[in-house]
Order: sequence, then C-alpha cells, then structure tokens
Amino acid sequence: MSGTSQAVNLAEKLAQFSERWAPRTVATYNGHDVMVVKVDGEFTWHSHPDSDDFFLVLKGELDIELRDRVVRLRPGEMFVVPKGVEHRPAARTGEVEILLIEPTGAPNTGDPATAARRIVI
Amino acid sequence: MSGTSQAVNLAEKLAQFSERWAPRTVATYNGHDVMVVKVDGEFTWHSHPDSDDFFLVLKGELDIELRDRVVRLRPGEMFVVPKGVEHRPAARTGEVEILLIEPTGAPNTGDPATAARRIVI
Repeated sequence: MSGTSQAVNLAEKLAQFSERWAPRTVATYNGHDVMVVKVDGEFTWHSHPDSDDFFLVLKGELDIELRDRVVRLRPGEMFVVPKGVEHRPAARTGEVEILLIEPTGAPNTGDPATAARRIVI
Repeated sequence: MSGTSQAVNLAEKLAQFSERWAPRTVATYNGHDVMVVKVDGEFTWHSHPDSDDFFLVLKGELDIELRDRVVRLRPGEMFVVPKGVEHRPAARTGEVEILLIEPTGAPNTGDPATAARRIVI
C-alpha cells in the first residue's frame, strides 16, 4: 500500500472502533503510517531514537508531557516531539482522538516488546 | 528546526496570511515540512517522482483530480497521492484551507522553476 485509493474520512475511521491506545493505520505516506487513535489517561514515558513523533488532536484535550514542561493540545492543534526526546502523552479530561504519524514498523512505545500491533483499516 | 517547540494552532497560523497557493511551514517532521495553505481555483497538473503527497482538508472542499478520476475532500478528510502519480488540486467552490506534508526542499509543483518558496511561520 502506498498512498490511499480514496478519500479517508477521519471521523468515519474513528467510528469503526472504541478500543483505546490501539492506533489504526488509515494511510501510508513516504514510509510512514498515518494513524488515528483514541486515548484516555496516561501513556508510558518513552522516546523514539530515530524518529520525530507527530500528534494532531482531532477531539478532546491532550497533554504531551515533556521532562521540563507540558504542551497542551486542543482540537486543531499539533505538536512534533523531536526524535530522542522523552515524552508521555496523557489525556486527563476524558477521551481524546488523535491523528498520529510514525515510521511504518516503528514501535509506538519505542520498545518492540510493549508496542501496539499494526492494524490497517 | 526539528519538531516544534510549542503547540501549533492551525487556525491561528492560517489567520496570519491571506495569500493563496503559498504554503507556510508550521513544523518539521522527519525531514518533511508540515504546511498550511489557502487555495482557490486550479493548481497545475504535476507529480512528485520521489515522494507521496499528503493532503488533509481543514476548511472548504478540495478536488484532487487524477487522470482517471476525481477524489473530493471535505473538512476532516485526507488523501495521499502516491509518488509519481499525476494530479491537479482544484478548489472549485471557494477558498480551501489544507494541511500539507512534503519533503523539506521538494518543489511543490514538482519543478524547481515554478515552485513556491519556503516560508516558515
């Protein structure tokens, strides 16, 4: 799969599942997976040694906790965590829907042992 | 610049300019520019031999014309044109606001002679 064969409606994709912290791949772009995910509560502290980490909030409010500060993201706001920088996404005010971009095959936790498996929808 | 230093509010970035077909870089991600752009009317037919082309519509309605069909995108809908595939973006019902991702330094028309210059905001 390279690119997409048709328009991808992000809300429709998000309506197809309710599981949290389980990203769904909706497109590929230059060796990356474009994913939607629903989250609530805290993720784990982690970093990606070889990749930046892209977040665009679609619904809800997400904190990207860094070791020295917190970046709060509301719908229509994005943030790119530079590669190697430790961070912890946290949804502290209810469920959040996010568009993520990560290199295809990269573990979302930075560690293959704890990473979510790839699911394409 | 790698990543972003703070939250990027896409609507606020778009409110900073009115020029059309002049993408503004709002973040970088793994060697790519993440850009917002306002468009109206037709772009030129072009392709990118070495890169997919990422479009996410934020406002308005955008047609991605391919040689054999048209993919219509409304707000919250995205499309990735596979590398090498000829396409012509066209906004036929008024101004459209788009989130784009392209490799940093790549000409947006596929041709350095006609490409927009890079503007970071």
